[in-house]
Amino acid sequence: MEPEVLLDPQGDDAYALRPQLFIELRAALEARDAATIDRLMEPLHAADIADLLEQIESHERRTLIEIWHGGIDGEILSEIADTIREEVLGYLSPEQLTQAVRELESDDVVDLVEYLDEESQEAVLDTLSPLDRVAVEKALSWPEESAGRLMQVEVVRAPQHWTVGEMIDFLRAHPDELPDQFYHVILVDPRMKPVGNVTLGRMMSSRRYVKLWDIREETFRTIPASQDEGEVAYAFNQYHLISAPVVDDDGRLVGVITIDDAMIVLSEEHEEDILRLAGVGETTVADKVWPTTKRRLPWLAVNLATAILASLVISLFEEAIAGYVALAVLMPIVASMGGNAGTQTLTVAVRAIATKDLTGSNAWRVIRREVLVGLLNGIAFGLVMGVIGVLWFGGPMLGVVIAVAMVANLLVAGLAGTVVPLALEKAGVDPALASGTFVTTVTDVVGFFVFLGLGAAILL
Amino acid sequence: MEPEVLLDPQGDDAYALRPQLFIELRAALEARDAATIDRLMEPLHAADIADLLEQIESHERRTLIEIWHGGIDGEILSEIADTIREEVLGYLSPEQLTQAVRELESDDVVDLVEYLDEESQEAVLDTLSPLDRVAVEKALSWPEESAGRLMQVEVVRAPQHWTVGEMIDFLRAHPDELPDQFYHVILVDPRMKPVGNVTLGRMMSSRRYVKLWDIREETFRTIPASQDEGEVAYAFNQYHLISAPVVDDDGRLVGVITIDDAMIVLSEEHEEDILRLAGVGETTVADKVWPTTKRRLPWLAVNLATAILASLVISLFEEAIAGYVALAVLMPIVASMGGNAGTQTLTVAVRAIATKDLTGSNAWRVIRREVLVGLLNGIAFGLVMGVIGVLWFGGPMLGVVIAVAMVANLLVAGLAGTVVPLALEKAGVDPALASGTFVTTVTDVVGFFVFLGLGAAILL
Repeated sequence: MEPEVLLDPQGDDAYALRPQLFIELRAALEARDAATIDRLMEPLHAADIADLLEQIESHERRTLIEIWHGGIDGEILSEIADTIREEVLGYLSPEQLTQAVRELESDDVVDLVEYLDEESQEAVLDTLSPLDRVAVEKALSWPEESAGRLMQVEVVRAPQHWTVGEMIDFLRAHPDELPDQFYHVILVDPRMKPVGNVTLGRMMSSRRYVKLWDIREETFRTIPASQDEGEVAYAFNQYHLISAPVVDDDGRLVGVITIDDAMIVLSEEHEEDILRLAGVGETTVADKVWPTTKRRLPWLAVNLATAILASLVISLFEEAIAGYVALAVLMPIVASMGGNAGTQTLTVAVRAIATKDLTGSNAWRVIRREVLVGLLNGIAFGLVMGVIGVLWFGGPMLGVVIAVAMVANLLVAGLAGTVVPLALEKAGVDPALASGTFVTTVTDVVGFFVFLGLGAAILL
Repeated sequence: MEPEVLLDPQGDDAYALRPQLFIELRAALEARDAATIDRLMEPLHAADIADLLEQIESHERRTLIEIWHGGIDGEILSEIADTIREEVLGYLSPEQLTQAVRELESDDVVDLVEYLDEESQEAVLDTLSPLDRVAVEKALSWPEESAGRLMQVEVVRAPQHWTVGEMIDFLRAHPDELPDQFYHVILVDPRMKPVGNVTLGRMMSSRRYVKLWDIREETFRTIPASQDEGEVAYAFNQYHLISAPVVDDDGRLVGVITIDDAMIVLSEEHEEDILRLAGVGETTVADKVWPTTKRRLPWLAVNLATAILASLVISLFEEAIAGYVALAVLMPIVASMGGNAGTQTLTVAVRAIATKDLTGSNAWRVIRREVLVGLLNGIAFGLVMGVIGVLWFGGPMLGVVIAVAMVANLLVAGLAGTVVPLALEKAGVDPALASGTFVTTVTDVVGFFVFLGLGAAILL
């Protein structure tokens, strides 16, 4: 069977697993038809197999791993989501586990074990050679989500005085000790401090007698092992790094990070930001009902508290509402428009802070702009809603009330949408996590208060 | 001056430009002190200079470009945000522009000119050699945001029968024709169809007589030039590609995409998703007030329409509200909780669709899970809010009404939060763009209708 039947490289959804594959696979699992399973799985890349395992049910996973002859290898294991990794590890025999883990580079082993419970972690570490185990345990001694956890310890380095010829001879003499993927040779001084980077492309196109030092890259950056992985990903993206040497506190070379790992981190950081902005913790669609419920609950609880606060504001004006019900009908519009405008602003601000495009140096300009945008949109929608209010309920003063409240609330939304994330960032709180609550609380409270307050003052 | 004074590689904000830099730079610009400007700019990377240009005011940009001796080079130009690119180009003399553009690879020139107005585009294209101009115009003939636009046409290829020695000799003979960065040699058949990839690392560690074909990579994927760049980025991330050959409709090699470009696209796609989820079009903090206002307006208009729809629902129950004002006080709570629960669910669904983790094969399981999560959280918050309602307003039946409405709305939120994005995806609409409106409309309407309807039926 051709891969093209299962993946459609020309279409819009070039790389998605096709529903047809799942239908056939499920039938084969049901019938325990190993030949069909092998045939269906054969063309799939390890990353797709991991996705597939995440998308089927737990009992199907078990059957698949049991009877598929391909077997779970190291690459599949390291691609699998944290949420089902321990389950899958539990299905493997000690021999299968050993074989799978031994294929991996040190950074992939670290990635595999770092969030396992102690027992599963021990089981994996036990499969390693003593030397590899030391390397992995060393990496695990770096803080979570640091460059030290992300790097691989297998590096290709050379003394800074070597020539191209010396380097090529060295590489040819040690083909088995080289990492799977490497793009640079790191030049080190006698104290093992990295002093430069030479790309393999540059090296291949240079004569044997050329000094590596003379063809080193112009841009050269080392990364401290303790640096947060989010900063590492930012550096790769910002400076178009392909690989970068990692150094310990004394500046000595301890590993290398390559762009493919940085890309994964960048993607994860973005994912985290999106989910945090929506008030969801780390989740995958493979999660079960109960953990998902618990993870969604805290944000909903915070939202309940702020909604009650807004209701308290409304309750100040019970008399006005009882006397003039149109106020109750129209009040959610002002709050909703403020909430949306605030969310727009805060999202732009949160992203700009994350990409370091919004800093102390331009904060005032951005705040001023957002307030002006809020004012202009407030005037536009205030006019529209004022007219609608008059047409709907017939009272011209009601139109004025809603128009003024709209302008006020959208202006406040622009202000809160920038000031809140900037203040949270300054206070060391992730603005993606908490800005939404604060901003919508502000727009709800201001929206209800101004609209109902003006309504009570003018209309009654 | 050491770079460390302006960038703090150890801190939390290792790569941000420091406020102190802006203060000193602004003073120097004010005084037109070229020496200080040169000293301040000297340690900055092109990407940081681009960020800096985006963060200062327009008149400051002009002065900086005028008197800074470093000058805007090609790399800085291609890093600059689209919103200020034309302005910056306008400050350059034809000679400066020619020099800057000639440094760039074809993909960077494409990136530079593709969104310029015709006049500026022509000015840049005029600086190119006829050969380069043909390459760039060819790339521009591919659809926007396609692999054809993203690729560079400078490729390193070899006939499939070559040996390592032949390849190295070839590279050494043509050092000036090689791209700045390359990681693979692409093997092609006599009809120029790519048939394999050899990493430079593998090649360097092999003897001269070894056939390239025998050391080619296991995983090999070609990318159609017409493929959407989002799919390209997904493929790089999913399959850990470092570079991939791009082919035309006949399968012939036309270019190569490298992971650093894919990483930028991945980052942009994420950014776009985040902003779309918040109802904001493409924006940067460098945008001016008026374009920003116009770009925020459509989503706010849609939101106004849905808010009015919700108000219409409320107006059905004017009598009930007039008779029992507590309903008006509490009704935003039910709607707000539904809106938040719906946003949580839809964000998870939208992301899972984007990462191809939510497909036809597991849609029902995910919908079932989200409905159950909604039900459980609905029960939890229904109980809490029921008790609060009773304590606050004293009527036991009011507690029942709000509790039941809460359960119903959170359940509906779970349902709408998954079904809406899935249906939009199926209909070919970007779920990130439109899901939010639909889902919050559903939760607002259902929330107000169930709460007020039950209230009217039971309490009056």
